[in-house]
Amino acid sequence: MRWWGWGDPDHPAALGPEALGFLREHVGVASAPRPPVALANVHVEAPALPDGAQAALRAAVGSEGVRSDHAARVGHAAGRSYTDLLALRAGAPEAAPDAVVYPRERAQVRAVLDLCARHSLAVVPFGGGTSVVGGVAPLRGRHAAVVALDLGGLREIAEVDRTSLTVSVGAGLRAIELERELGGQGLTLGHFPQSFEYVSLGGCAATRSAGQASTGYGRFEDLVLGLDLVAPGGEIEPKAFPATAAGPDLRQLLVGSEGVLGVIAGLELRVRAAPARRLYEGVFFREFAAGVRALRALAQEDAAPSVARLSDEPETTMSLALAGSGGAKGRLGRAYLELRGCEPGCLAILGFEGGEQEVAHRRRRAFELVRRHGGLAVGRSPGRAWAAGRYAAPYLRDELLTHGVMVETLETATRWSNLERLHGGVGGAIAGALEEQGTPGLVMCHVSHLYETGASLYFTFVARQREGAEVAQWRAVKQAACEAIVAGGGTITHHHAVGRDHAPWLEREIGRGGVAALRALKAELDPAGIMNPGKLFSPG
Amino acid sequence: MRWWGWGDPDHPAALGPEALGFLREHVGVASAPRPPVALANVHVEAPALPDGAQAALRAAVGSEGVRSDHAARVGHAAGRSYTDLLALRAGAPEAAPDAVVYPRERAQVRAVLDLCARHSLAVVPFGGGTSVVGGVAPLRGRHAAVVALDLGGLREIAEVDRTSLTVSVGAGLRAIELERELGGQGLTLGHFPQSFEYVSLGGCAATRSAGQASTGYGRFEDLVLGLDLVAPGGEIEPKAFPATAAGPDLRQLLVGSEGVLGVIAGLELRVRAAPARRLYEGVFFREFAAGVRALRALAQEDAAPSVARLSDEPETTMSLALAGSGGAKGRLGRAYLELRGCEPGCLAILGFEGGEQEVAHRRRRAFELVRRHGGLAVGRSPGRAWAAGRYAAPYLRDELLTHGVMVETLETATRWSNLERLHGGVGGAIAGALEEQGTPGLVMCHVSHLYETGASLYFTFVARQREGAEVAQWRAVKQAACEAIVAGGGTITHHHAVGRDHAPWLEREIGRGGVAALRALKAELDPAGIMNPGKLFSPG
Repeated sequence: MRWWGWGDPDHPAALGPEALGFLREHVGVASAPRPPVALANVHVEAPALPDGAQAALRAAVGSEGVRSDHAARVGHAAGRSYTDLLALRAGAPEAAPDAVVYPRERAQVRAVLDLCARHSLAVVPFGGGTSVVGGVAPLRGRHAAVVALDLGGLREIAEVDRTSLTVSVGAGLRAIELERELGGQGLTLGHFPQSFEYVSLGGCAATRSAGQASTGYGRFEDLVLGLDLVAPGGEIEPKAFPATAAGPDLRQLLVGSEGVLGVIAGLELRVRAAPARRLYEGVFFREFAAGVRALRALAQEDAAPSVARLSDEPETTMSLALAGSGGAKGRLGRAYLELRGCEPGCLAILGFEGGEQEVAHRRRRAFELVRRHGGLAVGRSPGRAWAAGRYAAPYLRDELLTHGVMVETLETATRWSNLERLHGGVGGAIAGALEEQGTPGLVMCHVSHLYETGASLYFTFVARQREGAEVAQWRAVKQAACEAIVAGGGTITHHHAVGRDHAPWLEREIGRGGVAALRALKAELDPAGIMNPGKLFSPG
Repeated sequence: MRWWGWGDPDHPAALGPEALGFLREHVGVASAPRPPVALANVHVEAPALPDGAQAALRAAVGSEGVRSDHAARVGHAAGRSYTDLLALRAGAPEAAPDAVVYPRERAQVRAVLDLCARHSLAVVPFGGGTSVVGGVAPLRGRHAAVVALDLGGLREIAEVDRTSLTVSVGAGLRAIELERELGGQGLTLGHFPQSFEYVSLGGCAATRSAGQASTGYGRFEDLVLGLDLVAPGGEIEPKAFPATAAGPDLRQLLVGSEGVLGVIAGLELRVRAAPARRLYEGVFFREFAAGVRALRALAQEDAAPSVARLSDEPETTMSLALAGSGGAKGRLGRAYLELRGCEPGCLAILGFEGGEQEVAHRRRRAFELVRRHGGLAVGRSPGRAWAAGRYAAPYLRDELLTHGVMVETLETATRWSNLERLHGGVGGAIAGALEEQGTPGLVMCHVSHLYETGASLYFTFVARQREGAEVAQWRAVKQAACEAIVAGGGTITHHHAVGRDHAPWLEREIGRGGVAALRALKAELDPAGIMNPGKLFSPG
């Protein structure tokens, strides 16, 4: 992964002249490109790992398993949030780990945690490094130093139990690697977050991830049958039963634990037959409210497709503008114009996956409901365009940053009866905060991840960066959005997790009692408080 | 509810002469009926509630809210396990609560817990009193006395959010009461455990219940969107979001907490449109293994009906014998004989619930799969017979006890690849232990509650009681079954919960680390250790 941004260094640029023109017109761009500094010019403090700790780590994982070189430290200095990228590109990350430790097996994780507790070293579990909420920030808390525990060496895939459709994997395995392996066996995990190409499976569990097709395949928490937590104060390995009534569900306590209770070393996951058919289609709604009603009907009448997302008017407009002028965009643009004239409208993508027969049946039922709520099928072009670009947004973000454009996303979820009110409230708060910053922007949103009782709202906003005050600008908008979310009855996060950025709101979400319960668990599992300081909740 | 057994005192006897003859022939019955003693002859120790505590409780909930009379104490002295019934019928419960306390609102629960902590009174939360694992045994632990906290006064039903399909209820509300209220609005909760007519919704949450239609509607844990735990050391009230990534799932920590962390006072639940159609049908399989393969295909190919259960050969034989000679039994018996000649076979019940169209579609798909695995549809009689008797087994148990017949059920779950091995292992262990007791019995089982990765096994066994050594007989068999379950890769309980009876096995199931985590939580939420002593796990 590019040290300063997203993904494959050879990925072609995605921001065409037309899209750049649109941005220049609507939010403004920098007068000159603002590229990242060179890696050598990134400033990090000299590593502060005490000699004894360094030697002990080397003894535990071998010399090649402990790195303190510049590239390794910068590569583990941040996740991939907007503020992470600002800091990396400017060559000024807030901190870097004093060492990066690479265990190759579970026993080494155990050994590393034991000696980190003895030497008072904070430990940041590090999977794909794709957190957008500061989940892997190398904070040392009150400890002597901090190490990043890179779990990339724990990537074994056990034989699939084809009768039960389960597989055991190492936590460092990437989602894309497992999907490739399963695909060769006619199977799928069905977990496709936007970070799919880099995210680790342990990271998906630790952050309670949800993929783009979670409406069909379930959230990551639904795919975790068992897991293996190695903690400084103990180990918990809930067995992978299909279901049990044996007390509280410890799996769901460890899923979402974000590294603050211990290290998820391994996982047992549910897999499925790979779909014989994938069919993504576009639907236009004249109004957002009609689209919401249609999606609700799909969810509540057991007719939801695997992927379902409904863009509001601004996101629909923006998607068309950013899609470029050729191919899918051209066809989509024409269909759109024919249908809508000059009116705004809302584009939905419905993606059906499964066996031929089942897809045909679900599609028929879904389109019946969609039509009943005023939706107009506009064919497969929009679906193909969405599928082609489903993992591309982080690349686009890098290009926008180069052009001095702030782009950020945030998400929540709420019940259906509150969805439109929350959509208005959060969107308005973001737009208002951007104006207050003197940088009026574009605020857009889509509904996705359908549940019977509600859905998520995923906001994207773009604005001209306040040069020299980028972080303050971001903080003001983020603060306004989070306040609007908690005041408006939404969850502070639907799938990005809490990390560092949302930690101040956790108590508003789960109450003092909830935080006290988590602190009690942490005291048991991590008595020295070395695990991922500053994330999820304040130490109290 | 009958103080010495199950349910409605006016319920007609169900054990016909034919069934009794079958039992006499196969396991033996008592030479003379063994009826329960009279209520007045039940011996309980005098209540030991200190005067100060008594006065404080009266101040908190009113005089009418504190009872220490014989009927109230005996009525809260036990749940409805086999050993509970033995003790009650003999007039010798192990203990009785020193008082029964009836809060009428949440604030009174708060007040009662505070003063119980001050006065060192153990608290046993009591809903429907239907536990079959000793979950409401009035154990005082190391405390001065014990009170049963009867939650029947917390039974409000808030207005249904019809857009989001959610409803808030008091924890003491019975499942049957909510179902009746929802039915009037065209809705259903879809939770139908065998205890449906008496069980409380708070009890369903506390015990991680699963209903007979959980394959279609989900386990109770899937229906709980939010809940409200009042604990001596704090309160936790996770909000009812459709989904969230905000850290560990505290809902799933409180679901299954069995009263040891605090009192579940209220719940927010998911509801659904009531099914327009309910269609229960019978299918015969020549062999158990073929039936298992068919059920697995239903679960893994997204074709499972709402209810699915497959009896093994002994259970099929027993069902036919106990069903009586008329009506459904007659037709069923004829169909069975025509199909099978004298061979044993396995009867499955498939129950489809939903809209007309959807039921037709699911039924068509399900029967395609069933036929492919050798199943023969035998029409609706077996389905009607099952539906008519779905809540009757506890009544039958009372009659069997009167005839000196031991009858017990226990359940587990495991993955599909281990299901037949576990079926053989546990069944064999039960049969062997019964023989060792000198009371060879009938051991039968059904597969039900289908999941993509596995299913539950529900064992029933009957044998002649060892008069005078009934508890020792039970303990020996239970011990053998539990050992076979944990050694064979099953969970110690699929839906009966842990309670007192399974507590010795919890550590084998969730490990030392898991138990330590639960103890840490208990220390935070219940520092004086007053909540439901002796249940779920040992205090350590």
